[in-house]
Amino acid sequence: LVRPAGVETYVALAPEGVTLNQVLAGHPVAVDGDQVPAGSLLSPFTPGKIVAIGLNYLDHIREAQADQPTAPLVFTKFPSSVVGPGAAITIDRAVAARVDWEVELAVVIGQRAQRVSPEAALNHVFGYTVANDVSARDVQFADGQWVRGKSLDTFCPFGPWVVTADEVIDPQALKLGTRVNGQVMQDSSTAEMLFGVAELISYCSHSFTLEPGDVLLTGTPWGCGEFMDPRVSLQDGDTVEVWIEGIGSLTNPVTVLSDGVRG
Amino acid sequence: LVRPAGVETYVALAPEGVTLNQVLAGHPVAVDGDQVPAGSLLSPFTPGKIVAIGLNYLDHIREAQADQPTAPLVFTKFPSSVVGPGAAITIDRAVAARVDWEVELAVVIGQRAQRVSPEAALNHVFGYTVANDVSARDVQFADGQWVRGKSLDTFCPFGPWVVTADEVIDPQALKLGTRVNGQVMQDSSTAEMLFGVAELISYCSHSFTLEPGDVLLTGTPWGCGEFMDPRVSLQDGDTVEVWIEGIGSLTNPVTVLSDGVRG
Repeated sequence: LVRPAGVETYVALAPEGVTLNQVLAGHPVAVDGDQVPAGSLLSPFTPGKIVAIGLNYLDHIREAQADQPTAPLVFTKFPSSVVGPGAAITIDRAVAARVDWEVELAVVIGQRAQRVSPEAALNHVFGYTVANDVSARDVQFADGQWVRGKSLDTFCPFGPWVVTADEVIDPQALKLGTRVNGQVMQDSSTAEMLFGVAELISYCSHSFTLEPGDVLLTGTPWGCGEFMDPRVSLQDGDTVEVWIEGIGSLTNPVTVLSDGVRG
Repeated sequence: LVRPAGVETYVALAPEGVTLNQVLAGHPVAVDGDQVPAGSLLSPFTPGKIVAIGLNYLDHIREAQADQPTAPLVFTKFPSSVVGPGAAITIDRAVAARVDWEVELAVVIGQRAQRVSPEAALNHVFGYTVANDVSARDVQFADGQWVRGKSLDTFCPFGPWVVTADEVIDPQALKLGTRVNGQVMQDSSTAEMLFGVAELISYCSHSFTLEPGDVLLTGTPWGCGEFMDPRVSLQDGDTVEVWIEGIGSLTNPVTVLSDGVRG
């Protein structure tokens, strides 16, 4: 739920496009997901910057046979990759072959954070939403720097609304998962995070300022297609749903472009 | 020079802060650098996203003993790292030890670019400015992902103004360099670029949309302190000047924070 009490701040974060606050304008009381017409929302807002964290779920670290990081591993996606619920994840075969899903708890920053302690960090959170950190594995690994493979246009489905922080009792106790064409691919809990939301905000804020409207993606659990045997990648016509308990569910179809023509 | 003909577009790119267009408002004819009071400018605007290219100068590739990339290597800096001319580059010793300079030709995108050809790419350029891609080498190499070590607060001096594209006859024939405390550290030409501005814009635009207000940093030539013998890093009290022929010069002092106290 997005409560009316949070809407003023929310409006300040949502400068353009059709956003939840416009929907809320016609619904001056709490709105739940079932009352929002499907397909009527763009992403809630365009983030200022997207700070993403790699290898932050213990079950995903085991799956990837990676060493456990001793500090959060920061990477990023360009804000130009953001799309809303229902929008197509578009794969250009001239650029990317192996495209994977990653459900992530997205933390929306509401107050500037600069060198904040873990104890004070959650005071800087406006709310939470759901993101799919869609990743072109071939591009990501060939480049070495992950940003391009993570930032292809449409590769950051985000939304469908922001749940204000007061509605989330414990961000480290939320079930989350992914279904592709209805089949369960990821199914875990934010309790598996190596570094929790408060630690991540504090850590980042000692390197760079987190500003209102910035978004922190907190990592993904086990169940990426890249690490399955045999490997699974998204295909034309697939439907991907990422969901987080108490926050929402985000569904996007997959469309493959081939030589500039929709496949 | 920033010509009045370019100011309308420039204003559209400069939504906040004290910017060159405000200075220009009091100078309705062409302004050159000598007429702008030193210390009166913030960076010209805050970029939407900063797309940066690694290992793009042949002389720098030789210096770093790196293999020549077969495609542009995309990385990024967070826009929150941008500061203007004269602002301190602040090094927090709790975060970074080895801090280096990198002069870069910064390309300001004026028109949305999506899957554009190299031949059409320069039509999407609003203008050019100078950037110092300040880099914490210890953080950059320890993280593997470069974004944090490249995005520490104050690590993207940028400006002092935007020279409109019509004023730059050939972006691949500009001398550029760096002086630290007056001593020449970098001294090269954009002719040394492996991938030129038009190729870079075209390449990027096939992966992600370049939007008005985005900035493309095109790589740095030989002469980084990290690759000198003995290695050189920026120290408290240093003054760094990066300059590009026909575009401008950007000078920033260096301040070291130690345990949160200015050193």
